[in-house]
This record gives sequence, structure tokens and C-alpha cells, in this order.
Amino acid sequence: MDIAILLYDRFTALDAVGPYEVLVRLPGATLTFVAKQAGPVRTDTGRLELTADAALADLPAPEIVVVPGGPGQTQVMEDEEILEWLRTADATSKWTTSVCTGSLILAAAGLLKDKQATSHWLALDQLAAFGAEPTSERVVVQGKTITAAGVSAGIDMALRLVAEEAGEFVAQAIQLGIEYDPQPPFDAGSPDKAPAEVTGFLRDNSRFLTE
Amino acid sequence: MDIAILLYDRFTALDAVGPYEVLVRLPGATLTFVAKQAGPVRTDTGRLELTADAALADLPAPEIVVVPGGPGQTQVMEDEEILEWLRTADATSKWTTSVCTGSLILAAAGLLKDKQATSHWLALDQLAAFGAEPTSERVVVQGKTITAAGVSAGIDMALRLVAEEAGEFVAQAIQLGIEYDPQPPFDAGSPDKAPAEVTGFLRDNSRFLTE
Repeated sequence: MDIAILLYDRFTALDAVGPYEVLVRLPGATLTFVAKQAGPVRTDTGRLELTADAALADLPAPEIVVVPGGPGQTQVMEDEEILEWLRTADATSKWTTSVCTGSLILAAAGLLKDKQATSHWLALDQLAAFGAEPTSERVVVQGKTITAAGVSAGIDMALRLVAEEAGEFVAQAIQLGIEYDPQPPFDAGSPDKAPAEVTGFLRDNSRFLTE
Repeated sequence: MDIAILLYDRFTALDAVGPYEVLVRLPGATLTFVAKQAGPVRTDTGRLELTADAALADLPAPEIVVVPGGPGQTQVMEDEEILEWLRTADATSKWTTSVCTGSLILAAAGLLKDKQATSHWLALDQLAAFGAEPTSERVVVQGKTITAAGVSAGIDMALRLVAEEAGEFVAQAIQLGIEYDPQPPFDAGSPDKAPAEVTGFLRDNSRFLTE
């Protein structure tokens, strides 16, 4: 089973690496980072570079597709080569998934029409323009299409996907392997839970996240 | 303020990228991935490569040091060039930190003597041989030295570090920015919480995590 994680200029690293760290341990699967061309791809902050080991053309029909988000998503939404690769992959994939604003890329490819979907909370409203139904949940499963909320939600999504594919025992073994027993120091991880002034600050200063 | 995250052959990606995604947003800080030589470094699974943008010699005195874990740690524990860089950096650092078996590297450098410290649960016992006191907590703070448990614990550690450095508001803004409102599908993230047969399986088959 081939798993492809899409990279593109100015993606958010944890959107991709969270699911990677879980899915790479799915028994029988081979995970590959892909981009338009094989080679280095730099993240949104400019401070980290990951390598795409393969070009899109090398992996036209992965069984699992993961699309991370990040500010570079706006360019990808107009990149017909990537959108067409996604449409083709989705036609035969077992699972088509996204993290964060990666769902806007799936939406731009026409893959979320009439489906419930989530995204980063600051971008959730934008899904409606593409015929998707914005849904404020951490992981949204619609048939074989799974969307996850912002950045860190990809870890939760990937564990659910492993449970679907390989059962609860394997998913729990991977969760224990990465010691995923989260203990965030604050209960501030969603716009409803964070102090109103923190949520308001990010609504007014979304550049804080990428500069 | 310079933040250095150490990379080495066969590190675990999320150990490094979790803290990166949090610490890169610390106001006024410049985060750099470093390795013995600048250039690509491959993770433990062989399926992902990150780039070190600088060599150790380029960044001798970072204010914050982050040492990830991973099976490659056993070689690093005998690499005098890396250990000496860590000792020198620690002499002037504001914070010296590790994730997962990265604490064994700090221990091998002699930086955990008579300190409480944590590690990946499968490696925790090994700390005692270096004069550290193994402590089964997710994040252990001892003065300026912070150790975090396995893999995903680096996210929690980094948020606590940001709160210390820049206050709760900034830490909460970063937590909300990465939408860190974890909802793992199972309560299996620590050896005490996971079903006994899952914990036993990993104790008997730790290769499951790296092959």
C-alpha cells in the first residue's frame, strides 16, 4: 500500500510530519513524500526544509493521500498540475485526507462537493465557496474522505485512519510508540476554549502564525 | 535569541518537528536546525529527510538547545564532537532540552548528573547509568534543563518553555495557532494507560517502531 504526503512551498511542517509519524508505521505500507518535483521543499516559516523523495508523476495512484495545509495552499489551489494529480489519485485512492488548510486544496480540486469538511479554524468559512459544508470538528470522516482541523489535528486523524485500516491494537501500539498521551499546559487549543482575547488576537493578527 | 534543534542520522522526525512548530513562533527568536555538517539528514524510518541549515560550528552558543531522540541516539552518545558541542552550548544556554531518547544524549554528555529526567518509556531505565534520576513524567523541569517523554511530548514541553520565556498569552496563542486541542481516539498513550497486551507487545517488539 502506497501512502503519499504532498509537499509544496510554504506548507506547515507539523501538518505533514504528524500524520507521517503515525502512518509510516502502518504495517505493509510504504510512505513517500511527493511534490511537483523531487527535491527540497521549504516550510511556511522559512526555517525548515523537507525533501520530497518523489515527483507527483512517480506516484500517480497512491492508496492513501495526505494533503497538509499552510499559507502556500493559496498558490496550490490554482496549480492545475497538483489539482489534477489529486483528482486522479482520488479516483482510485482508498483514503483521501487533509490536515488544516489542506482541505481547501481538496476543495479547489472539486473533491469536497456536498461533503462535510473541516479546516484550520481561521479558514473554516472558506470551504463553503467550494460546495463543502464547514464542520467544526477535529476530524471529519465522509466515506473515504477525511479532513482534520488545524496543524496538530493530523495526529488524531492518522490514528483513526490506522484503526480503520489495521485495527485498534495496531493504532494503540503506534499511539503508545509515539507516547501520545497529550498534556497541553493550557486548555487553549480551540477558538471556543481559548481565552477570548487570545482568539481575538489571532483573528486580528493571523500573520503571527507565519512570520 | 538563537534556538538550535540538533539533527543526526536516524532521529525521530516528530521529536524535532513538534518543538519546532511551537518554538519557531517564540517572538524574537531565530530557530535553526543544526547537524555535524549542514545538509540533509534522514530520519529513523528512512522515509523522510530534513535539512540542517547550519553546522554545529556555526552555532556554538544558542540560548535554547533541543535534542530529539530516535534510534540514532546510540551512535550520538559516542560522538565526542556532538557531546562537546552540547557541553559548550549548555555552559551558556538559557535552556537545554530534550525529547524522547534525546535525554540519553544529554546524559552521555554529562549534563543530567544528579538531575531528575524523563525519556521514552522504553528507555527510561537507561538514564540511571549516567547519574540521572529516571522520572516517569511527561515533562521534567530541573532548573534550565527540561526533558520530555517520548516523541509527541516535545509539543507539550515546547509550550511550557514558551510560557516561561514569553508568558501564558503567547503560549496560548501558539497553542491555538496550531489548534492543539488533542483528541486521541484511544487512551493508550502511556504504558500505564494502554491495554497490557499493547504495552507488552512493544516491550517485546520495539523494532515495530523503527522498521
